[in-house]
Amino acid sequence: MAQQDRAVRTRQELIRSAAEVFGRGGFADSSVSQICTRAGVSHGALHFHFRNKQALGEAVEAAAARTLLHVTGHVPPGHPEPLQLLVDTSHALVARLSRDPLLRAGFGLGSDAAWRGGALLARQWQDWVRLTLTVARRQGSLAADVVLDDAVQAVTAVVAGFEVLGRDDARWYARRAVTSFWRLTLPQLAAEAVRARTVAAGSSALASRDAEPALDDAWPTAR
Amino acid sequence: MAQQDRAVRTRQELIRSAAEVFGRGGFADSSVSQICTRAGVSHGALHFHFRNKQALGEAVEAAAARTLLHVTGHVPPGHPEPLQLLVDTSHALVARLSRDPLLRAGFGLGSDAAWRGGALLARQWQDWVRLTLTVARRQGSLAADVVLDDAVQAVTAVVAGFEVLGRDDARWYARRAVTSFWRLTLPQLAAEAVRARTVAAGSSALASRDAEPALDDAWPTAR
Repeated sequence: MAQQDRAVRTRQELIRSAAEVFGRGGFADSSVSQICTRAGVSHGALHFHFRNKQALGEAVEAAAARTLLHVTGHVPPGHPEPLQLLVDTSHALVARLSRDPLLRAGFGLGSDAAWRGGALLARQWQDWVRLTLTVARRQGSLAADVVLDDAVQAVTAVVAGFEVLGRDDARWYARRAVTSFWRLTLPQLAAEAVRARTVAAGSSALASRDAEPALDDAWPTAR
Repeated sequence: MAQQDRAVRTRQELIRSAAEVFGRGGFADSSVSQICTRAGVSHGALHFHFRNKQALGEAVEAAAARTLLHVTGHVPPGHPEPLQLLVDTSHALVARLSRDPLLRAGFGLGSDAAWRGGALLARQWQDWVRLTLTVARRQGSLAADVVLDDAVQAVTAVVAGFEVLGRDDARWYARRAVTSFWRLTLPQLAAEAVRARTVAAGSSALASRDAEPALDDAWPTAR
């Protein structure tokens, strides 16, 4: 392996290990030594890549933000079924949370009182929800009496709730839980024309998304 | 002041200070010294009341659980409007979160990776929601096609979401945010007979609840 490849892999392994250590003990309680041990990397090698624990936290957050972007995709201004896309993406996001310590760590940092970086991932999710619902409104997929802000807030909050509850009890990451929310809200949210065909449990397009490989630069698959 | 009164007040002040220190920096990053300084209490006095930081965490959680019980009340098997009670109580809980560092710290510990006590408050809230919705079903206030678990999960998750998002941005604690969720779900949740009279923004009974004093043993008012 070329030296540069090895450096890239070491960096990725350090980010992955930091995410796991932060996720188990919180940012404040995690030490650079624990992260080195978990990654099988010397202190010297760690400091070659990261100045300190804060820099590792920033790298975890940035990698998690890329994963989130990978899960959501960019907001498609001409998507034919923006409401179904929102439902499918909420399922894909919660499913990804259940199996991806890096993504969990990214959301976790945002609500960790010891982390000074702010809630980057929650805001990125909220922005995506708002833009997608704006597309839905423009295309007539939202019921006329739905206030856009209501829908944005409810969808953002419920996914944040699944994330935080799932930390203590993984059943909150089950597809059933996300489906519950949509069964309750879709009849109100969806315009008459799309109500019958919008599937609370996720459309068939969701199955293929679940199988997508992880983002390469955030989560190396060939290990 | 009698010596016993003073001991009770010192204990309460230590719990209050611990909640504030945990809330600002997380459990792991909080030191017993910080808590002593904030409470204006010597190390000796702290150790008279609490063996260590873990014991302080348990006391914070127990006091927050009492506050939560104070906010929800016991589930009233014969309540005339259980669905409105659920709406009002969710508003009261989020409002209380916005102004009560002790209650926030109790929920916060449940999702703090460094805390080993489990998510006591989230489960207490979920149990209350489940029992209240069970009463609603029995009395015919829930629409017939609503699956009880769907409603329990959605209501539990969205309030957990407001709690975790509000840590970074207090606008999530605004009544408007909670109302958003109910506007989207009540039309689906409520039986025809109660739909029109169930108020998403909270009933007039809510106003009097907001003004209730805090629970004395958790949060001394005469300071």
